Amino acid sequence: MANTRIYLDHNATTPLGAAARSALQAALDVWGNPSSIHSTGRQARSVVEKARVQVSRLLGCESDEIIFVSGGTEGDNLAVHGLAISARDDRKNLKGAPHVISTAIEHPAVRGALAQLVREGFELTDLPVSSEGHVDPTDLAAALRPETVLVTVALANHEIGTVAPIAALAKVARDAGVLFHTDAVQAAGKMRIDVRALGVDAATISSHKLYGPKGVGAIFVKRGLWAHPLVCGGHQEHERRGGTENTPAIAGFGAACAETQEALHADGPRIAALRDSLEAQLLAIPGAQRQGPQEGRVPGTTNISFQGARGELVVIGLDLEGICVSTGAACTSGSVEPSAVLLAIGVPVSRARQAIRFSLGRSTTAADCDVVAEAVARVVARVRAANP
Amino acid sequence: MANTRIYLDHNATTPLGAAARSALQAALDVWGNPSSIHSTGRQARSVVEKARVQVSRLLGCESDEIIFVSGGTEGDNLAVHGLAISARDDRKNLKGAPHVISTAIEHPAVRGALAQLVREGFELTDLPVSSEGHVDPTDLAAALRPETVLVTVALANHEIGTVAPIAALAKVARDAGVLFHTDAVQAAGKMRIDVRALGVDAATISSHKLYGPKGVGAIFVKRGLWAHPLVCGGHQEHERRGGTENTPAIAGFGAACAETQEALHADGPRIAALRDSLEAQLLAIPGAQRQGPQEGRVPGTTNISFQGARGELVVIGLDLEGICVSTGAACTSGSVEPSAVLLAIGVPVSRARQAIRFSLGRSTTAADCDVVAEAVARVVARVRAANP
Repeated sequence: MANTRIYLDHNATTPLGAAARSALQAALDVWGNPSSIHSTGRQARSVVEKARVQVSRLLGCESDEIIFVSGGTEGDNLAVHGLAISARDDRKNLKGAPHVISTAIEHPAVRGALAQLVREGFELTDLPVSSEGHVDPTDLAAALRPETVLVTVALANHEIGTVAPIAALAKVARDAGVLFHTDAVQAAGKMRIDVRALGVDAATISSHKLYGPKGVGAIFVKRGLWAHPLVCGGHQEHERRGGTENTPAIAGFGAACAETQEALHADGPRIAALRDSLEAQLLAIPGAQRQGPQEGRVPGTTNISFQGARGELVVIGLDLEGICVSTGAACTSGSVEPSAVLLAIGVPVSRARQAIRFSLGRSTTAADCDVVAEAVARVVARVRAANP
Repeated sequence: MANTRIYLDHNATTPLGAAARSALQAALDVWGNPSSIHSTGRQARSVVEKARVQVSRLLGCESDEIIFVSGGTEGDNLAVHGLAISARDDRKNLKGAPHVISTAIEHPAVRGALAQLVREGFELTDLPVSSEGHVDPTDLAAALRPETVLVTVALANHEIGTVAPIAALAKVARDAGVLFHTDAVQAAGKMRIDVRALGVDAATISSHKLYGPKGVGAIFVKRGLWAHPLVCGGHQEHERRGGTENTPAIAGFGAACAETQEALHADGPRIAALRDSLEAQLLAIPGAQRQGPQEGRVPGTTNISFQGARGELVVIGLDLEGICVSTGAACTSGSVEPSAVLLAIGVPVSRARQAIRFSLGRSTTAADCDVVAEAVARVVARVRAANP
């Protein structure tokens, strides 16, 4: 059944890739507790450590700078909350409330962690974002305070795909002695990431967004930095994350990172070309409009609204035609609010409610794009006719 | 290789059971994001919700009282920290510091969550524990303060197996209007659990301790109670736990709970008898002594020290003979400290360093126990001779 459907919701999750599946399957038999000192435990430990190297290579860091967590959301929480708490505790000379800087277009995982910091007495500044989702390093420089302990800006936006100028932003923070984290969940697997070149102190990635298993993610934390733990318990992950390591998922994640790294060179341009072709066809539908930039996006993502056609109805109509798309982040499903990302870049509420996110992936074909464009035209016309 | 080894470290982790493996494997193909509203997402949602029912049946609660988390450690953290924070915020009339009550023999996951509460201004009382690891409800009644918001006591201890009188303890808390949580990680799969009969407000269980996959656990939280989230982000798990659900592991966990529930009736007495037979043989070794009670333990666990033989050396010696045991919780591996549990029940430091935890499981046979008893006698004698 899954084979006959067309799935253009890769920003929500991706199918399990072949290498990841095979590594996960093999690791189901390596079931020891990696913390056990006997050989059944040590076998599991070696699987975990091999994967740690594979993940570190995708990010361009050392393996001891990788902390495995249960996914992107936990990773963002540990990085943002943990680094901010640790930095606040380190800087005992803060005169005012500790301060963090971010944007209103971050993923709910980052926004959730920031909200928790605010509950704990931090102040938060959201930098202005342009109509294309861009953040200006000058605005960051202006927002810094003596009490600023952390800046967090996503590398690629999850709804409109905008790639942020992280290297420039991180330099502004670094020059001021302020930590910088980037949520790279939507960038990993879609563009090359080199945490050294970016100059960030921490980054988060998620396995299931890059054809790896669900239930695992990782944060890069620069050597020497401490992130106050979120999940407290045993000594695992250099005392930063208690709990028995999820060996099979970690093994699959490592394999997915290795496979992604090889595939990226060819996949990126191919998927971008498919996206551009789909986008052109969609924008030819009367009343269609793109949200977000044309240039400077990750490949695969396009966000289009269709005037007069409520997004949810279009999603449901396309689903009946065997096509999976979304109105935005799956993490906000169930919410009746229009996308916070689109509102923050100045899209009016009515148009935000008509937005559809199409996110292409490894298996997407040119034929898929043609079928989807034709189906969207049909479904949008039907929705408009039924709800005039 | 795993087949030729004898594994008596089931309290650290268990192999994946047949039902769990098959459910996990099947769910690898149900890869949609359960929060997506299209059919690929809804298929995954139905897998998650089926497992939620299976887990709830093991605990005797309703499925909407189950919150899936990444494992026992996260579950203990969410329950203990989250309930205490929420209860404190609810009770605006607290005159002194908010107060929590526990014991010194809890698992590091609970101790870690309690330490975090203390960092946030809570006061902690550890109830006295007897030399067998027992907690007296009278002591709990005496420790209650007007500011007490939460009591947490494990149902079964992870090192010595003592089963706590949770129903009596929970009644004392309930009569005082104080929330009660039990860490049931080491009890689930080893004894029947009925959260209604126990009268607890919350309980934690872990999948990989009961022949389910790693990377998943659950907490029961009584309907109507709020636990302040630990991992903040999307709307998942009734807003209590952000992050894409780990569908395959959740499916495997559900199947493991269903299988465990069926197997328990026969497994419990059989494993207890094997444990008693092993224990009798081990206690016949000169200088051997049991830590913890003879009666009122979960089946499968025995903790024995061998005078003059350092625990780590015995573990390593047995490993070379193809036998997996541990000195205590895997979560404390890497620590040079003797077991906090054993010290808390009054075991002298020197003897605590000589303790070995044997934990039997589903696949343990009488022949295994005989082989192990014979090997322990040999290894202990060798360790004693080498380190006089």
